[in-house]
Amino acid sequence: MESDSKSATAGKVLRCKAAICRNPGEPLVIEDIEVDPPKAWEIRIKIICTTLCHTDITYWKMKTGLVAAFPRIFGHEAVGVVESVGEHVEEFIVGDTVLPVFLPNCNECRDCKSQKSNLCTKFQNNYPPNMPRDGTSRFRDMNGEILHHFLWVSSFTEYTVVDVTHAVKITPEIPADKACLLGCGVSTGIGAAWKVAEVEEGSTVAIFGLGPVGLAVAEGARQRGALKIIAVDLNPGKFDIGKKFGVTDFINPKTCGEKSVSEVIKELTDGGADYCFECIGLASLMQEAFLSSRKGWGKTVILGVEMHGSQLSLNPYEFLRGRSVIGTLFGGIKPKSDIPLLAKKYLDNELSLDEFISHELSFQEINKAFELHQEGKSLRCIIWMDR
Amino acid sequence: MESDSKSATAGKVLRCKAAICRNPGEPLVIEDIEVDPPKAWEIRIKIICTTLCHTDITYWKMKTGLVAAFPRIFGHEAVGVVESVGEHVEEFIVGDTVLPVFLPNCNECRDCKSQKSNLCTKFQNNYPPNMPRDGTSRFRDMNGEILHHFLWVSSFTEYTVVDVTHAVKITPEIPADKACLLGCGVSTGIGAAWKVAEVEEGSTVAIFGLGPVGLAVAEGARQRGALKIIAVDLNPGKFDIGKKFGVTDFINPKTCGEKSVSEVIKELTDGGADYCFECIGLASLMQEAFLSSRKGWGKTVILGVEMHGSQLSLNPYEFLRGRSVIGTLFGGIKPKSDIPLLAKKYLDNELSLDEFISHELSFQEINKAFELHQEGKSLRCIIWMDR
Ligand SMILES: [Zn+2]
Ligand SMILES: [Zn+2]
Ligand SMILES: [Zn+2]
Ligand SMILES: [Zn+2]
Repeated sequence: MESDSKSATAGKVLRCKAAICRNPGEPLVIEDIEVDPPKAWEIRIKIICTTLCHTDITYWKMKTGLVAAFPRIFGHEAVGVVESVGEHVEEFIVGDTVLPVFLPNCNECRDCKSQKSNLCTKFQNNYPPNMPRDGTSRFRDMNGEILHHFLWVSSFTEYTVVDVTHAVKITPEIPADKACLLGCGVSTGIGAAWKVAEVEEGSTVAIFGLGPVGLAVAEGARQRGALKIIAVDLNPGKFDIGKKFGVTDFINPKTCGEKSVSEVIKELTDGGADYCFECIGLASLMQEAFLSSRKGWGKTVILGVEMHGSQLSLNPYEFLRGRSVIGTLFGGIKPKSDIPLLAKKYLDNELSLDEFISHELSFQEINKAFELHQEGKSLRCIIWMDR
Repeated sequence: MESDSKSATAGKVLRCKAAICRNPGEPLVIEDIEVDPPKAWEIRIKIICTTLCHTDITYWKMKTGLVAAFPRIFGHEAVGVVESVGEHVEEFIVGDTVLPVFLPNCNECRDCKSQKSNLCTKFQNNYPPNMPRDGTSRFRDMNGEILHHFLWVSSFTEYTVVDVTHAVKITPEIPADKACLLGCGVSTGIGAAWKVAEVEEGSTVAIFGLGPVGLAVAEGARQRGALKIIAVDLNPGKFDIGKKFGVTDFINPKTCGEKSVSEVIKELTDGGADYCFECIGLASLMQEAFLSSRKGWGKTVILGVEMHGSQLSLNPYEFLRGRSVIGTLFGGIKPKSDIPLLAKKYLDNELSLDEFISHELSFQEINKAFELHQEGKSLRCIIWMDR
């Protein structure tokens, strides 16, 4: 198909397979669904591969609240090819390789135009379940029941529809499974190290929580030449994998004895780490990270989403010693400009992504990805749509 | 006297007048005292003029604790001339115009060598009352009783002795009363705006507390071209003086009605200020400042010292929206390198200092400065030693 040609299916309702979650916490069911053609400023994407992220699990289990909506099509890390485009779409053409992404990026609002923010003001959605412009869904099951979108992506389907503000064109040179990783967790960790903390050569880094985001922080810190990369995790099984991403020291809070984690980190770093990263989302751990940071310039970066409603309680006197705390969503990554840069870094061997892929499954086996995640056995499990 | 000559008094105990505080909260008494010659790495300074800062008042009232020590010679903002130098002193010669300063700056430790920190590691004193290297005093009253130093400066005396790490050479071109201001509060505010927040042209600024430090933040923000400078203070009497320093909007928390201060600031700034400065030292106000900062890049700078032991309680979710909090002592100013730069800015008309001087007194009238401060009537009251 030529890149500027119209696909045969353009403008038509498409029938395809999708993994539907009917009720919270239940296994997904692969069924035929109908996917509407893209409306204005929307594109329809044929998914090549997708992965499962911790946020999928969080919402999959969620029984109540504004953000709980069923039946639903989960998935928000993926890569695909543009099948057709709606009216007014100029940024994408049929055949483009694209990454759908949960964070909008309109490139027109004050935040999108500023180098300092990655939080689009124009499309700052408070997590409604469906398309950002009209709140409706493009998915129906074969009984005509509406299927809700998830995080403006919904990638557990052969075809999805996303707004142009939620898609990034990337080079087809990067293998699909590696590209797929750039849509959420891995970019968050790399971005936090490179853009938010600006880790520099010879510095010391402490990472609280060694999941894929924490490992991505380590990878980012290693690429920047950090001298010491200390990981804190309750699961000693994660330490071996950490080493592959440049982690130099491990702390298991259970085996610190009478010392607090921050005391151990201060000993290892002669007074505290230059950069601390909280990747779990626990207020108590954010406090420990803050206390582990060096006086003078110690910076604590919060990546984890605190889901318990706890307040972060900090000592103002410790702040006065030149410390800072900064929060970030998606590691400060501006999707349209930064994701292509990360892809280039990968192709130039300045960023390792291969080690993040722990498993590969066919679309039919998608529930296995949930099991592996729940057992803590996978980093990223690539789910191939055509296998 | 030639600048490389020895003064006639070098090496000898000097008799001079000093304002002694015998007991907490009592008026100072001007008496004759004896000042020892400087030991190794120390200089003896003839004070030209000095001022009273809020921190003097705080410690003057303090009855107990490690930092309470009487009898004592207060004062830590001043300018003077080197009268004699101790062994190993190479940085200063007799006749140099110098600013004694409470924050050490050794220029040798990791922090002093880094551009990111102004908190000297080698001389990080936990506020002992006397000289930093041996903990002894250079002052005695005429009965031979030890008089304690204050913040390594003690400027309410005709002659004082300070460590070389606590003195900065400045150009004699700058009038003494203006130079004197650079030793503490004014530099703290300017530094917070210029070095810590890095306020830029067109930005919005909110200042909590319109004392001399808050006014200096305003002056710094105005010089950087801030579009809106919002001041929050319970005393509407401070609003007129604020205008002289570039304040554009005033908020009196008492007259906000049902709205919180942060809501009013969000309305005035279309979503929140780019930079918020807490200059009082109240945890509750730090929280309000944080909530007044803009999502995406809003930065809250803590300058105020929380003296009540309260914890700062912040919502992690608000952090995730790209906000940050940073604490600072002395506004990030590195004394030896930054104070001469501020003096140059004043001489180049890039920094206004004149408006900070609200009163002038002779040394004999020093207790009047305490009264004016307590009544909230003075910004900075210059106390001339030779009048
Ligand atoms: Zn935008
Ligand atoms: Zn995710
Ligand atoms: Zn130092
Ligand atoms: Zn002061």
